[in-house]
Amino acid sequence: MVSAEESFEIICRGAEEILLKEELLERLKLGKPLRVKAGFDPTAPDLHLGHAVLLTKMRQFQDLGHHVMFLIGDFTGMIGDPSGKNETRPPLTREQVLENAETYRKQVFKILDPDKTQILFNSEWMDKFTSADLIKLAATHTVARMLERDDFHKRYTSGQSIAIHEFLYPLLMGYDSVVMKADIELGGTDQKFNLLMGRELQKHFKQKPQTVIMLPLLPGLDGIKKMSKSLGNYIGIDESAEDIFGKIMSISDETMWLYFELISRRSLTELKELREKVSAGMNPRDIKFLLAEEIVERFHNREEAIRARENFIARFREGALPENMPEVQVSAGENGISILHVIKAAGLTTSTSEAGRMIEQGAVRIDNERVTDKSTLLHSGKEIILQVGKRRFAKVVLS
Amino acid sequence: MVSAEESFEIICRGAEEILLKEELLERLKLGKPLRVKAGFDPTAPDLHLGHAVLLTKMRQFQDLGHHVMFLIGDFTGMIGDPSGKNETRPPLTREQVLENAETYRKQVFKILDPDKTQILFNSEWMDKFTSADLIKLAATHTVARMLERDDFHKRYTSGQSIAIHEFLYPLLMGYDSVVMKADIELGGTDQKFNLLMGRELQKHFKQKPQTVIMLPLLPGLDGIKKMSKSLGNYIGIDESAEDIFGKIMSISDETMWLYFELISRRSLTELKELREKVSAGMNPRDIKFLLAEEIVERFHNREEAIRARENFIARFREGALPENMPEVQVSAGENGISILHVIKAAGLTTSTSEAGRMIEQGAVRIDNERVTDKSTLLHSGKEIILQVGKRRFAKVVLS
Repeated sequence: MVSAEESFEIICRGAEEILLKEELLERLKLGKPLRVKAGFDPTAPDLHLGHAVLLTKMRQFQDLGHHVMFLIGDFTGMIGDPSGKNETRPPLTREQVLENAETYRKQVFKILDPDKTQILFNSEWMDKFTSADLIKLAATHTVARMLERDDFHKRYTSGQSIAIHEFLYPLLMGYDSVVMKADIELGGTDQKFNLLMGRELQKHFKQKPQTVIMLPLLPGLDGIKKMSKSLGNYIGIDESAEDIFGKIMSISDETMWLYFELISRRSLTELKELREKVSAGMNPRDIKFLLAEEIVERFHNREEAIRARENFIARFREGALPENMPEVQVSAGENGISILHVIKAAGLTTSTSEAGRMIEQGAVRIDNERVTDKSTLLHSGKEIILQVGKRRFAKVVLS
Repeated sequence: MVSAEESFEIICRGAEEILLKEELLERLKLGKPLRVKAGFDPTAPDLHLGHAVLLTKMRQFQDLGHHVMFLIGDFTGMIGDPSGKNETRPPLTREQVLENAETYRKQVFKILDPDKTQILFNSEWMDKFTSADLIKLAATHTVARMLERDDFHKRYTSGQSIAIHEFLYPLLMGYDSVVMKADIELGGTDQKFNLLMGRELQKHFKQKPQTVIMLPLLPGLDGIKKMSKSLGNYIGIDESAEDIFGKIMSISDETMWLYFELISRRSLTELKELREKVSAGMNPRDIKFLLAEEIVERFHNREEAIRARENFIARFREGALPENMPEVQVSAGENGISILHVIKAAGLTTSTSEAGRMIEQGAVRIDNERVTDKSTLLHSGKEIILQVGKRRFAKVVLS
């Protein structure tokens, strides 16, 4: 049995904002299963690791014994974009909605527990919601309140048009919470306004308002921009074991820790231990192996994860690393040492200025990651693989 | 058979604005019955002469052979004010709507031809209009367009709240025109935005947009403020013959001509002749008798009209006028004569300064109308009853 305080810690993990935290703790203390809502768009069922942040949080709720509701917002999906301006949003047929739901199901059950997941379609209640009901719902909020939403505010003040039905959608999303009697709603930080609408409408309908848990947007492979299909910096849930493994191995150490926090099932205690190992000198690359294995195991299985790791190591050895690399020891001093000096010291160029030119040409890599900044400093206590051009390698021990 | 040009003149009579006039003429030239829409509120069926302006225009269309549709907007009436702020607009039941419709019927058929009037309730089609339909309708217009409406604009910029459903109502009113395939919509000038919404939605639904005819607001008995129940300056359609007659006799000459133009069934030619008679010296009061008789006859019958006139004259004689009044002839000269001099010349005061004081005290009347301006000039060619205090009278012939 997990205590309310332990549950609270698990649920707060990685959350960017919780409204209200004290409400959440109170609810957990009741010791009853909570009704947890998360809404999904019925048009784009191709999921990537960014979606896994939300799904992982849902899974945590399931593991703690709560009731998780996976809501597919098919009602508006079947309307499409009524203005006709957005050609990427044609109205969906009921068949397409069910087909997309099936695609979702295949993917999300790699993370969620199928036995503990209720899949809902909001057309179930919205098809019975009359235009008179909608008018009454619209009367609960003011135009000014709606124009407070960031994107509406920006569009209105910059003279970009907002069609009136766009004011109705947040209300409909909030109304779903009323029908579903949600105790908790999960969503991205970009959904804050809509999530709070659920709270307001529940109050209007004399329900206890849902606690809103906002999760951060996962950065993509570049570690900077949010993961998205259109930016190409994503890891698809349906990708091959090898691709997922390789992509995770390509992220920066910093991004790795974020992924650990947001999508790993390792406990916070375990993560703390891993960080301590790195501080004690363990190569972060070896920790990244653990993350890549965990994710591949989740989306495929244990055997695939082991095979993907072996293949990755083999390819790394064959393709990129020569069997016998020269090993050089370089003293980094207290303040670190310029990469230009390390390249020259390792004998990979004859001068620091040549080293600089190679960096400018994008020909220098450390642990297979390209170096773009000539002023990069390297610090003591690490062992790196330094590469210049295609064939010049050195293992450098920074002391 | 009336020509298109003659019809056009009749229909343009009294209209404050027509959008578009050339469209109207084109439509009339087709020689086919036009579908004429006018919308009425289902909550307040107590009609007064202000409503008669619209009904008179509808009657003109009927007399010209067109199809007149009397629309009762019961759909939103049955919703009431969903914000609950307006306690004077509780949701109506279907029974109340039908009851109000019956009250309407009794009154409006005093003006409209019952055989040529189609009474419609918009709940007939709106009850089948789904929330998805409403969302699509809302998508046809932008928030910015809606905030162009005068009252919305004022409220928004002054920080008064606008509930979102208020943006939906003009769209619903416009949609009625689509369903009714209206060629013409009649309304007050205060309804311009909503009437134009009908045009826009008809275009959206690939119909020829309705021609909008805006009628002025009828001034009340005071001749200044618009006729309204709350201001108490109204003539109810259901009032007694005597009350209607007396109230019409109390309006100013200027207001009388406006009433003639907007609610009399006398032709423009006849009105022109009446004006000429007054110019030639006829007492406008006698013309007012004609208006009062016509209106009473319309709302009651010919006999009642005659009786009301006789009673009015009798009361006027008994109560206000002594049997034998002194008759005085006063020369007004080319530029008119000061009322102060006329009062003294008629022997009603001993000096012009006393006459001035009596005016200040509100004790002077001409033809039973109080004189408030000491600098009033009277002109030649008129016969007036001059009264000072309760008992001093004189018939003055201005030459």
